[in-house]
Amino acid sequence: MNYANITKPTLLIDEQKVRANLRMMLKKAQNSNAMLRPHFKTPQSLDVVRWYREEGITKATVSSVDMARYFAEGGWDDITIAFPYNPREWQAVQDLAQKIQLNVLITSIEALVHLKSHVKAKVGYFIKLDVGTHRTGVYPWDQSTISQLAQMSSDTIQFRGFLAHAGHSYKKLNPKAAEKIYWKTLKDFEMAKSFAGVSDTILSYGDTPSCSLLDDFSAVDELRPGNFAFYDVMQYYFGSCNLDQIAVCMACPVVSVHPERKELVLFGGAVHLSKDMVERGGEKTYGLVVELTESGWKTKPIGEIVRLSQEHGVVHANSALLSRVRVGDLVGVLPIHSCLTADLQGYYVSLGGQRLEKLNKAVL
Amino acid sequence: MNYANITKPTLLIDEQKVRANLRMMLKKAQNSNAMLRPHFKTPQSLDVVRWYREEGITKATVSSVDMARYFAEGGWDDITIAFPYNPREWQAVQDLAQKIQLNVLITSIEALVHLKSHVKAKVGYFIKLDVGTHRTGVYPWDQSTISQLAQMSSDTIQFRGFLAHAGHSYKKLNPKAAEKIYWKTLKDFEMAKSFAGVSDTILSYGDTPSCSLLDDFSAVDELRPGNFAFYDVMQYYFGSCNLDQIAVCMACPVVSVHPERKELVLFGGAVHLSKDMVERGGEKTYGLVVELTESGWKTKPIGEIVRLSQEHGVVHANSALLSRVRVGDLVGVLPIHSCLTADLQGYYVSLGGQRLEKLNKAVL
Repeated sequence: MNYANITKPTLLIDEQKVRANLRMMLKKAQNSNAMLRPHFKTPQSLDVVRWYREEGITKATVSSVDMARYFAEGGWDDITIAFPYNPREWQAVQDLAQKIQLNVLITSIEALVHLKSHVKAKVGYFIKLDVGTHRTGVYPWDQSTISQLAQMSSDTIQFRGFLAHAGHSYKKLNPKAAEKIYWKTLKDFEMAKSFAGVSDTILSYGDTPSCSLLDDFSAVDELRPGNFAFYDVMQYYFGSCNLDQIAVCMACPVVSVHPERKELVLFGGAVHLSKDMVERGGEKTYGLVVELTESGWKTKPIGEIVRLSQEHGVVHANSALLSRVRVGDLVGVLPIHSCLTADLQGYYVSLGGQRLEKLNKAVL
Repeated sequence: MNYANITKPTLLIDEQKVRANLRMMLKKAQNSNAMLRPHFKTPQSLDVVRWYREEGITKATVSSVDMARYFAEGGWDDITIAFPYNPREWQAVQDLAQKIQLNVLITSIEALVHLKSHVKAKVGYFIKLDVGTHRTGVYPWDQSTISQLAQMSSDTIQFRGFLAHAGHSYKKLNPKAAEKIYWKTLKDFEMAKSFAGVSDTILSYGDTPSCSLLDDFSAVDELRPGNFAFYDVMQYYFGSCNLDQIAVCMACPVVSVHPERKELVLFGGAVHLSKDMVERGGEKTYGLVVELTESGWKTKPIGEIVRLSQEHGVVHANSALLSRVRVGDLVGVLPIHSCLTADLQGYYVSLGGQRLEKLNKAVL
């Protein structure tokens, strides 16, 4: 990596690490006879998901209609929008469904009635189950709603199956605790399936902590983790990954050094990293500082971001770093939440110095 | 306002409120015989700062070299980059300084030596003082550093004065407490000025809480608040503004309603609002929900966002809202931190339905 051209906060992406993460998850899916349909809300980049395609991935999950259109225009023709159907976007859903195999998410009869009465194109729908996260979804024990929703299929609007996101797995876990959440979800799936009264229902499961900690997913048909492709410090604290597996790192210029308070200040703030953080023992962390190397970065943290304003990141640094760092140097920051950090970027830079393009919010 | 075309999270901007906020601050500056050089990191939009120009503002503060270039290309020719000089961007600083009146911020001798030895164009510099925030800056009592820095002026690299940002005013304040911070800063300015041994030094002060709560700034030469143009819920909690003065509001589609847990779910998440939040009594708030009207929005909150994921905002709603809201409706969200919310947008929409363009990160 030639750092001479890196003058400002720049999100570096290690293609080999991304590919290794993809292969690890693909292997789990293949061993379980399940389809891997990764969530593209993490990379939001056609240049990056080209690697996904090369590794054998052909189906995508996204979190918005805009994102579905972006990937569809880039050649992805089988996409699930894993966000509740938004009636206000029915026209865009119809336009997309005329071009690709599109699935949407249904969380209420109201929404499905709207979809059926407005969208005149072939579109699949999944019933979103609330398996304990209490964000959206139908309760698995709600027989009346589930059976009505499953029976509302038509020639164009077709019931595909059930989708669950165990968002309550986003905490410190071990394989045993992850298994408990997974087995509970399987019971929910079985209950819902029995209410649906439809054969050939797809069971779609996915969240990075469960998918990282468990190996056998033979009871479901589809896995939809997203973050695993990049991982991040939050997932490291959850126990989902090692620091070595984190595939993105923000190169940040040092603009100020304060040995008397063991701090240095980076050009790298909330508009680069996001304000997401982890709180441990009452202390907030907004990113772990690492050393950049010719071939990427070392993964042993040498400091952490303890305060973050719009463009500044204040680092609590160890004495080794403080003694050698100078204004104008670059350090790396492993992000707390790579999805939100990636969302904030205009582009990525590969370790070969190549610029990788992303979804551009200004042209939506 | 015609909401028929609003299909997804869209940041509405009320031009009249922005102009009223600008006039209020301009009046304070004029009464104090001080220059208003507002921080453009809040709007990041040439279309929005056209209103600033029309109200009589001619000088800008920005937080990055990229932002300076964007506004310079749009005709702003007197800009201060209120972020520590980043040696890695010297070439871009030089290019800009050849075109406009540019000021940069110096926090160390190291940085000024670099600036002087690299940038061959006329550029002004301010010494950043640390007046208690402990983010960056020279301590006001550091006579040796201050006098060295002030004496390093040359024909091209010219000392302009001292700049302070009382970031420690970002908390619940009243005019008396704000005055205490302001008077302390004035003492710091006086001390630094006496060490500089240079006449004609500009004293530049600015943060939204102080500038909102106080009226008389005749002891300084320049004010640089930024957030005041939009305000937000955090500033409302600090006591800097009324809810009526908040000039931006995110229109968000309702995608799911859960009366049994007094919640509704919005299409409007961390990638639209940012993860910034306020914590009050142990509860986190990510935005206040208001009713949209034909002429903008009502300012009485009818719910608050209590959880936020990438695209979802979970609202705790009052029973009046829950009883009438339906999937597909739009509600408004007053942002917690308007600078970060604005940063996340591809564009704004005026109450007349006009699209206002912003700095585009994808083309930097």
